Amino acid sequence: MREVFQQELREVQDRLVEIAELVAISIDKATRAFNESDVSLAEEVIAEDPRIDQATVALDELAITILARQQPVARDLRIVVSALRISASLERMGDLSTHISQLARYRFPDKVVPKSLRSTFAEMGALDVEIANKLTSLLRSEDVQLAEEIRNEDDKVDALHLSVFDKVLGEKWKGEAVDTVDATLASRYHERFADHAVAIAKMVQYLATGDWDQSAA
Amino acid sequence: MREVFQQELREVQDRLVEIAELVAISIDKATRAFNESDVSLAEEVIAEDPRIDQATVALDELAITILARQQPVARDLRIVVSALRISASLERMGDLSTHISQLARYRFPDKVVPKSLRSTFAEMGALDVEIANKLTSLLRSEDVQLAEEIRNEDDKVDALHLSVFDKVLGEKWKGEAVDTVDATLASRYHERFADHAVAIAKMVQYLATGDWDQSAA
Repeated sequence: MREVFQQELREVQDRLVEIAELVAISIDKATRAFNESDVSLAEEVIAEDPRIDQATVALDELAITILARQQPVARDLRIVVSALRISASLERMGDLSTHISQLARYRFPDKVVPKSLRSTFAEMGALDVEIANKLTSLLRSEDVQLAEEIRNEDDKVDALHLSVFDKVLGEKWKGEAVDTVDATLASRYHERFADHAVAIAKMVQYLATGDWDQSAA
Repeated sequence: MREVFQQELREVQDRLVEIAELVAISIDKATRAFNESDVSLAEEVIAEDPRIDQATVALDELAITILARQQPVARDLRIVVSALRISASLERMGDLSTHISQLARYRFPDKVVPKSLRSTFAEMGALDVEIANKLTSLLRSEDVQLAEEIRNEDDKVDALHLSVFDKVLGEKWKGEAVDTVDATLASRYHERFADHAVAIAKMVQYLATGDWDQSAA
């Protein structure tokens, strides 16, 4: 029974890694679509999001089946419950990536953000992609050093998010209302994407070390 | 054992109702703070949010204890797993209510939105409050008619959310960039609040009827 359980836990972990990989591909394409006004890339992201949704639903069903059959307790139980939470955050990250792509598609053939903000969004996008890749590695390796790195990168995303508002509300801003709306939403999506990664990283860190930070709940 | 389990499930349900009540109070105060520029009300919401967070953490711990001790299967197991998901959405609704209050506080003594949008936000706020109250009743009574009503009200919130963009991007819009940013964020927060209520309503409906709509996952 114990051995079956360990196998099933590995299956859960493998599937979480697979979903995280899909999310990493999604955000990579979404931020390129956004920064380069590549509408066909944006449409790919939108078309592929249901795959992430389906994979998370299937993972949730597997986790519930494991709870029913193996009736885990203590740390084993917390691993399975955490898998359900991680799955929910990954699903949401896919949605945010889709929202970023939708902005690129709506605005095509124009770019979503005016010149003065492009380097900021390029940086935010690159950080989101790096965070997603590190999250995949973290889920695979449980190397808690990566959780620390994700937190640091999230701090950078937060600072860039605030700097978007500084620019939009500054005297030099010449954007129209549509530019202001798009910059606000896009910045929020990039920032929430990183937040979800931090929440997942905290859960993995907790599972690996037993050091529970309740704010990750 | 079975009787203990039923008692524990009632305890889970009672706590979810209590948290939903806190969220309903929070969004009622937040939308009044927002629409009437009432900074002390805004500060109340912000100060009380940790209570919602703590209540959801405690509920999660109870749910995990029940999983470990009672080892439920089938429908009972799904009830406990759904409680964890509902708890996560309620916690997030409290956050969104806090974000709405923060906008009111930042902008005080000014109102957050210009005159042309006030009736729209008054309507969105009233709908969010009604949705939160119905959600509390739904969690208490499992009357699935309420789930249907929440969905209909969410459709109205979505329509109002789109109408905010129509106004902000319309020719008559005279708002400054700060008004545009605030209207965009505020509208998004109101809309997400209602989305979470719909996700919870779908879960309750599923548990009550066995009719699973996977998009609620």
